[in-house]
Amino acid sequence: MKLYSYWRSSAAYRVRIALHLKQLGFETIPVHLLQDGGQQHHADYQLLNPAQLLPVLQDDNLSLNQSLAIIEYLEEVYPEPALLPTDAKGRAEVRALALDIACDIHPLNNLRVLQYLTGPLALNEQQKLAWIQHWLTIGFTALEQRLSLTCGEYCYGNQISLADVCLVPQVYNALRFNLDMQSYPHIHRIYQHCQQLAAFALAAPEQQPDAMI
Amino acid sequence: MKLYSYWRSSAAYRVRIALHLKQLGFETIPVHLLQDGGQQHHADYQLLNPAQLLPVLQDDNLSLNQSLAIIEYLEEVYPEPALLPTDAKGRAEVRALALDIACDIHPLNNLRVLQYLTGPLALNEQQKLAWIQHWLTIGFTALEQRLSLTCGEYCYGNQISLADVCLVPQVYNALRFNLDMQSYPHIHRIYQHCQQLAAFALAAPEQQPDAMI
Repeated sequence: MKLYSYWRSSAAYRVRIALHLKQLGFETIPVHLLQDGGQQHHADYQLLNPAQLLPVLQDDNLSLNQSLAIIEYLEEVYPEPALLPTDAKGRAEVRALALDIACDIHPLNNLRVLQYLTGPLALNEQQKLAWIQHWLTIGFTALEQRLSLTCGEYCYGNQISLADVCLVPQVYNALRFNLDMQSYPHIHRIYQHCQQLAAFALAAPEQQPDAMI
Repeated sequence: MKLYSYWRSSAAYRVRIALHLKQLGFETIPVHLLQDGGQQHHADYQLLNPAQLLPVLQDDNLSLNQSLAIIEYLEEVYPEPALLPTDAKGRAEVRALALDIACDIHPLNNLRVLQYLTGPLALNEQQKLAWIQHWLTIGFTALEQRLSLTCGEYCYGNQISLADVCLVPQVYNALRFNLDMQSYPHIHRIYQHCQQLAAFALAAPEQQPDAMI
């Protein structure tokens, strides 16, 4: 399999975690989101993904975008270890936690949005940071409340799930923007717990071949 | 089942379409996003959904947020008619199309975002409309290209799927904001085709008990 990835992309980070949890080998194809005007906008990448976003996973005759669609695909084709519970209620609740992050937090602080804020809208750095913190705070506050009902060692009881796969990159992103995690004890504890696992360590941005530290 | 809904909410609209396609009876509980300071922010609704967003579906002992998690749940518990193909590749491609809308288009033009633009950022109506059109144009341009490879009568061949369930509310939203659909012939044709089906007609915003026309 080939993964088109950027070390700091939250969505690519999710897929890397899932691939490592399932112990699937893959080749990383770096796409630099900032160099050369953004390599995701280059014509050859647009052929792969007209949305000019990461990641894309290629497996046999499949070329797939959208991190959650990719992970659901991996879950169906390579079911072990499972990232979703076996019962419909559990699967639904885990998917909802993952989508709380993937639909309600991450899209608002994505690179292209921040570029629009400081470009066409001409926001200064302080206003940009206020925007980022606003959506992180709203999103994490809701997520913390929800996790208080569902979590054990991980987001959903004591089994790693798709929710943890989404949580860790989002917390990594929040820490980059200096969000104070003291208000989110469940989120922070689960994040730290996941970081101790090999799959999460291998998927970490700083461990990627294209990392610029 | 009970669906907490607002007539113009894209996410609630998706779930209504899925419920009608599967011919499942449900009671609509209106949550008015604008009246009384936004009923989604009231304490009793926050108990149901701390994210203060729509929709929430209640079924037996389940109270579930996130439209795509709800529809995947319906798909598992009430499988007919299927909204996902049977093969892993097809399921993945349909989910990716749905997420193209649910993650990359819809969250950026949601009510709470527009309220932040005109509130804290003090954008005028023209700037707000430019923001809306920017993300719609980027999103629809990519989606149109993708659909040129996948569509038949519907987004994915000739079977209705989760992708159509997401497409129709997004186009409805785009038409509200006067997006010129001439550049998106596949999207527009599929939208018009879906509108002829009873399930889509029943789920339409103007047909809801809380519609204010």
